[in-house]
Amino acid sequence: MAFIKTPVKGMPDLLPEDVALRESIFKMIKQAYSAYGFAQIETPSIEHIENLSNKQGGENEKLIFKILKRGEDFKNALESGSGELADSGLRYDLTVPLARYYAANQSKLPAPFKAMQIGNVWRADKPQKGRFRQFVQCDIDILGDDSILAEIELIAATADMLTKIFAQAGLSKFTVHISDRRILRAAAAYAGFEECDFDRVLIILDKYDKIGLEGIKAELEKAGFVMSAIEKYTQFYKNAHKGVGCEEFCKYLADGYLAPDVATGIDTIIACVKEMADRGVTVMFDPTLVRGMSYYTGTIFECTIDGYDFSIAGGGRYDKMIGQYSGQQVCACGFSIGFERIITILKDNKVAPATTAEKRAVLIEKGTPPQKMLEVMRAAKAARADGKTVSILPMKKNTKHQIDSLIEQGYSDVERVYRS
Amino acid sequence: MAFIKTPVKGMPDLLPEDVALRESIFKMIKQAYSAYGFAQIETPSIEHIENLSNKQGGENEKLIFKILKRGEDFKNALESGSGELADSGLRYDLTVPLARYYAANQSKLPAPFKAMQIGNVWRADKPQKGRFRQFVQCDIDILGDDSILAEIELIAATADMLTKIFAQAGLSKFTVHISDRRILRAAAAYAGFEECDFDRVLIILDKYDKIGLEGIKAELEKAGFVMSAIEKYTQFYKNAHKGVGCEEFCKYLADGYLAPDVATGIDTIIACVKEMADRGVTVMFDPTLVRGMSYYTGTIFECTIDGYDFSIAGGGRYDKMIGQYSGQQVCACGFSIGFERIITILKDNKVAPATTAEKRAVLIEKGTPPQKMLEVMRAAKAARADGKTVSILPMKKNTKHQIDSLIEQGYSDVERVYRS
Repeated sequence: MAFIKTPVKGMPDLLPEDVALRESIFKMIKQAYSAYGFAQIETPSIEHIENLSNKQGGENEKLIFKILKRGEDFKNALESGSGELADSGLRYDLTVPLARYYAANQSKLPAPFKAMQIGNVWRADKPQKGRFRQFVQCDIDILGDDSILAEIELIAATADMLTKIFAQAGLSKFTVHISDRRILRAAAAYAGFEECDFDRVLIILDKYDKIGLEGIKAELEKAGFVMSAIEKYTQFYKNAHKGVGCEEFCKYLADGYLAPDVATGIDTIIACVKEMADRGVTVMFDPTLVRGMSYYTGTIFECTIDGYDFSIAGGGRYDKMIGQYSGQQVCACGFSIGFERIITILKDNKVAPATTAEKRAVLIEKGTPPQKMLEVMRAAKAARADGKTVSILPMKKNTKHQIDSLIEQGYSDVERVYRS
Repeated sequence: MAFIKTPVKGMPDLLPEDVALRESIFKMIKQAYSAYGFAQIETPSIEHIENLSNKQGGENEKLIFKILKRGEDFKNALESGSGELADSGLRYDLTVPLARYYAANQSKLPAPFKAMQIGNVWRADKPQKGRFRQFVQCDIDILGDDSILAEIELIAATADMLTKIFAQAGLSKFTVHISDRRILRAAAAYAGFEECDFDRVLIILDKYDKIGLEGIKAELEKAGFVMSAIEKYTQFYKNAHKGVGCEEFCKYLADGYLAPDVATGIDTIIACVKEMADRGVTVMFDPTLVRGMSYYTGTIFECTIDGYDFSIAGGGRYDKMIGQYSGQQVCACGFSIGFERIITILKDNKVAPATTAEKRAVLIEKGTPPQKMLEVMRAAKAARADGKTVSILPMKKNTKHQIDSLIEQGYSDVERVYRS
């Protein structure tokens, strides 16, 4: 078979300068999250096909890279023609593996458990600028804490981390949007929509940022909902994005639509995160925030940064998912940052990782006698022990060009060793 | 479909203490290799099936996790019954991806290029203690340097790194074995074996450690080789492991069997590495070292550690492989450490990662008013800015048990906040 030198479609080869930047950001993420008590874990890249196809993953389930069965299993599957040729697949997110992991290892983990996961995920999506088929996700999750302390820690840790990362790019202004699935559903009920229509209504509300309240109204009409509900709903949403607190916004829902502690909880989360966050961070109740995944059961949140029209982090509470693996209900709340989007923004802003070590290159002419080489080795050993980077290389014929290239690579000190 | 809570066969879930140890070792590896001028790169986990099945991977090619084609491609492959249902697979090592990477990106990389790669690889092998189906490999390679400086840098960097890692376990004695495929072939030719039989002879020689020279002789006889060759070969190998230098060992091969610079080169490599390495490191010429992979063309080397009967690192020169991708010959030499084996040894020796930050937990009673929570947040912010880890958690009914568990997790300071 012929060799192919381009990488597989949508999967990037990372050059040394790319990896250096990414490694510096990984380090900042780990440090920031670790300061909030999150412990790093790792789940396998490969997951049972049954777990990946459990209808929790939404659209992502269509994008699974499936892995062929092997040996007899494969032969049998092929011969039976049942179509079940795959027994596993590459994970498309870190949430499904986390839920399985917690169900499998709960007895060995603290409760509540504050988990940090950084790893590749794979989706057979159409590649485009900034969207790859292999990409890194960074998630933090708190399992087994049903109090708003979970939300506060998750959001404060993420805001803290993003502040530190974006400071390098001179970007200091971003916004945390907070809402709650229970409020979204209560508002739809209050307006008079049928429960079976809530999902369709929320899919339309999700377009608020793009089409505004008038657009929402028009789409609801087009979808054929009753006018009275549409009127009441849009009237209710007139206060959205007016800087109104959650409790104030939800006052009409108090009458049986919404438990009172939901809105006060959101306001407390916002107050506490504001207390901890940097001045550039806006923390706001945003009742137009919907978020796509069906597994969210309570609070939902998202981060946006001034000047970019996509979110850079998103998460929420998903109290039902782990129980599906363990058979035992475990509440959970998580926040996932869009690592590749952050890298794209940093590169757009020409952020380069800080080089730390002093770098020396030693060029050795061909034919240099062993005794002279030993001297070079001794000196290199001492310099490396001293924290310096030393690269010993063969001298090229065009030494000037070689030295220029080394200086470009950050070697401030180039020494030449001749054979005599 | 039913949910499955155990991980996929042979793929481990890593607990927080596992990840902490691994992360601390990754850090040491990156620091040590970076001090020798190796630059970290990353290749995708998924590789073209054509590249994985190119006969370079030896036995590993039987262990590929293959990835199903998708959409129309899959339908067509299934209907045509041609059996080519996979278009790609998970990499089984980091060498094949590196060769492809260099061919694809050569113009953007320095020459010579000193690459460091750390990443997961996957093999559908039979799982057993210390052997997984997903595991980490750490490779360093120097591409485009045909001088022995490449071998010296690779071996010295690896010896340096291993010395630092194993010092934590109180293990300081290990051995670097160095040989050369050209010497192995020259010795077989000198003894009188036919060139077409060299591979079979070397497979037998590879068992030297287990069966000794008498065993080698018996196996060669059993394989039906001519007695004169067997006699001359075993006579020649009598000097193996006697501490003889390579040039001395190879003196009978000088007469047309081996280019003279091969043996002197090995002796210079050994002298230079000895100069740089720690006192506990033995660096020796070992003419019984064979190594399995067919792609090696020159020097080969391996590390063993006293008290363990498996190698912990292995590598060599493979000057032909990259040319198969790029169409242009590029010499290459690499060293790969057995990361999982190193972790196994460290765990056997009860090595735990050094905990750095002071850890404080704050337990908050349910019903604590927002105003009091804000005070907690302020104090936590200050402590985190000060480099401490602070975890804010809901207070449990059994507070004593909760505190004991936190102390076990390394929280030396536990503060309680009551609602009134």
